[in-house]
Amino acid sequence: MSNPLFSDQVLSHVNRIEVYQPGKPISELQREHNLFRISKLASNENPLGSSPKVVKAIQSELMNLGRYPDGNNYYLKQALADFLQRDVSQIALGNGSNELLEMAARAFAGSGDEIVYSQYAFAVYAISAQVVGATGVEVPAKDWGHDLAAMADAITERTKLVYLANPNNPTGTFFGKTEWEDFIQKVPKHVIVVLDEAYTEYVTDPDYADGLDYLDAYPNLLVSRTFSKAYGLAALRVGYMVGHPEVIGYINRIREPFNINHLAQVAAQTALTDQAFVKKTVELNQQGMVSLMRFFDDMDLEYIPSQGNFICVRLGESAPQVNQALLAEGVIVRPVAKQGTFAEFLRVSIGLQKENSHFMDALRKILSRSA
Amino acid sequence: MSNPLFSDQVLSHVNRIEVYQPGKPISELQREHNLFRISKLASNENPLGSSPKVVKAIQSELMNLGRYPDGNNYYLKQALADFLQRDVSQIALGNGSNELLEMAARAFAGSGDEIVYSQYAFAVYAISAQVVGATGVEVPAKDWGHDLAAMADAITERTKLVYLANPNNPTGTFFGKTEWEDFIQKVPKHVIVVLDEAYTEYVTDPDYADGLDYLDAYPNLLVSRTFSKAYGLAALRVGYMVGHPEVIGYINRIREPFNINHLAQVAAQTALTDQAFVKKTVELNQQGMVSLMRFFDDMDLEYIPSQGNFICVRLGESAPQVNQALLAEGVIVRPVAKQGTFAEFLRVSIGLQKENSHFMDALRKILSRSA
Repeated sequence: MSNPLFSDQVLSHVNRIEVYQPGKPISELQREHNLFRISKLASNENPLGSSPKVVKAIQSELMNLGRYPDGNNYYLKQALADFLQRDVSQIALGNGSNELLEMAARAFAGSGDEIVYSQYAFAVYAISAQVVGATGVEVPAKDWGHDLAAMADAITERTKLVYLANPNNPTGTFFGKTEWEDFIQKVPKHVIVVLDEAYTEYVTDPDYADGLDYLDAYPNLLVSRTFSKAYGLAALRVGYMVGHPEVIGYINRIREPFNINHLAQVAAQTALTDQAFVKKTVELNQQGMVSLMRFFDDMDLEYIPSQGNFICVRLGESAPQVNQALLAEGVIVRPVAKQGTFAEFLRVSIGLQKENSHFMDALRKILSRSA
Repeated sequence: MSNPLFSDQVLSHVNRIEVYQPGKPISELQREHNLFRISKLASNENPLGSSPKVVKAIQSELMNLGRYPDGNNYYLKQALADFLQRDVSQIALGNGSNELLEMAARAFAGSGDEIVYSQYAFAVYAISAQVVGATGVEVPAKDWGHDLAAMADAITERTKLVYLANPNNPTGTFFGKTEWEDFIQKVPKHVIVVLDEAYTEYVTDPDYADGLDYLDAYPNLLVSRTFSKAYGLAALRVGYMVGHPEVIGYINRIREPFNINHLAQVAAQTALTDQAFVKKTVELNQQGMVSLMRFFDDMDLEYIPSQGNFICVRLGESAPQVNQALLAEGVIVRPVAKQGTFAEFLRVSIGLQKENSHFMDALRKILSRSA
């Protein structure tokens, strides 16, 4: 590009945001690489798609595309309030939980403020800090997961917000009740804690600390969840946040009135009614997780035990080459880091049995070649 | 609510935002008022719905709801670039143009900065200023429309952004080439001008100044448009902004990667290919506009000539009562202001012929009652 004309006009923290490098859609990759079979295990998506009830509900709304969505999300909020046994005033909806995570930062933090999050956490936490011009404070991970004690110690007078994920993406790690309770008790009451539970439906460990159980005791706690994972609505972008009515009210003040589109509202509301689909999703995930762990054990590959719908496997310094080789076999997984020890891992989403097999066969082939 | 706990924590400009008062969806109104026939002429929606091609395109994507949208909007951007004969680097996409209008403010303005817009303009301009903590400078309207000369004069050293709408909503007024050229030449080159052309497809006046024609000469100009009106996709939330690649790049830095959902991308891309539908929409609008103007003339009611898909009619001090009476007849229109002279008007969207007749019959009945 020629010399910038507006670099003095754009807000300096916006100018500092790293420019996003657009990739190509899968269909383009497929065409270019001449691939006939692709297993996309890169984005922690639901391999079952979504509930058939959702598809029907959307079909019945296709004659109404000219009408604006309900700006208040009246029916969806009611349905969520009933499902969660909370009041509608405790719920905010976002265009994916991404938007809610960012809105929390936009409501509570700005230039000169600090936002605390963990190393190896969801990239959106650091980006949200950048977007509002706050200082992101990354706390070193412990055993690839959140070091909650260190995170509590990292809170200063400037800290306005802490992002936590349980389970954490991309590592799949989780924290249990004792550790969590120690943490939340130590956090000053005026610091907002955003607990991202995008993968909560997949959790099997009974020691898992569910944020919803702590909302009444901690008004500074916000729990965010999503319809993109276990409910299989990633295409449609619906996330929700639950918290104290006052804090949720602040989030809603900066919410754009039509941020959730009409088909997305209908889909999410319908998806909630099909808990059998969620159960099927979770069961499929557990089966896939077990077979991948067995495979990694057989192959003598280190992995990070995961409570999510994905697992990180260690492939050493050749991880980037293995990733490229997997791509050539039609298997798309996610490199999780560009440098450091974590770059030795690849994150694999749990897919359908045939997709998992595609990945395992391809990886076995690639590793036997290089051995 | 009990005493606020976090009013010292939430950013002060967020706390100052007026709390949005949720209304009820139409289906609830219908049930409560026992209405069997409703004509919704309140939100400037496309009474024809959307192109049948769009409905088909969405149907063919319903098995892919579990997959994330293409974060780069690759195909939609290409289609728009071709349609507008611009480069993809000149295009940003938003979750409705609302999001783009707000992102422009978030990229260029903050506390201590000024954002200039007109009296009687789209409410989102003032809200966007509030959301970023900037000072909104409202310039008095002239003949219900933008006073561009006064707006140019209102620009100070603190001004970072000017919002204009052409045609303007809710008044329907527009500005012509001479007035616009005088204005844009006067604006300092470092001040961003956001020209909202949401209703551009409906314009019939040959003197209309189309912002796209001025992009090459004015890199500080951003033109925003929407698929919600003439393309009939209000339910799906897709807007686009066209401008200088550098400025568009700043907008894209703060854009969330999955802000346009998958069905919305598919719908917008398909809608672009059905310009016959847009033509039909615009023709229906012109017919409806003519019959409403004739009716107002017959009834001796003042109205503001409009280049949009809506028209403001003056009903005097009883406008709120007339609005309520229309509602009781099943006709939903929009009161445009709570106080001042403009509160004497109601905004009516142009609907189907039968919807327009419903409105005219109801208004005739109401006014004859009170006469």
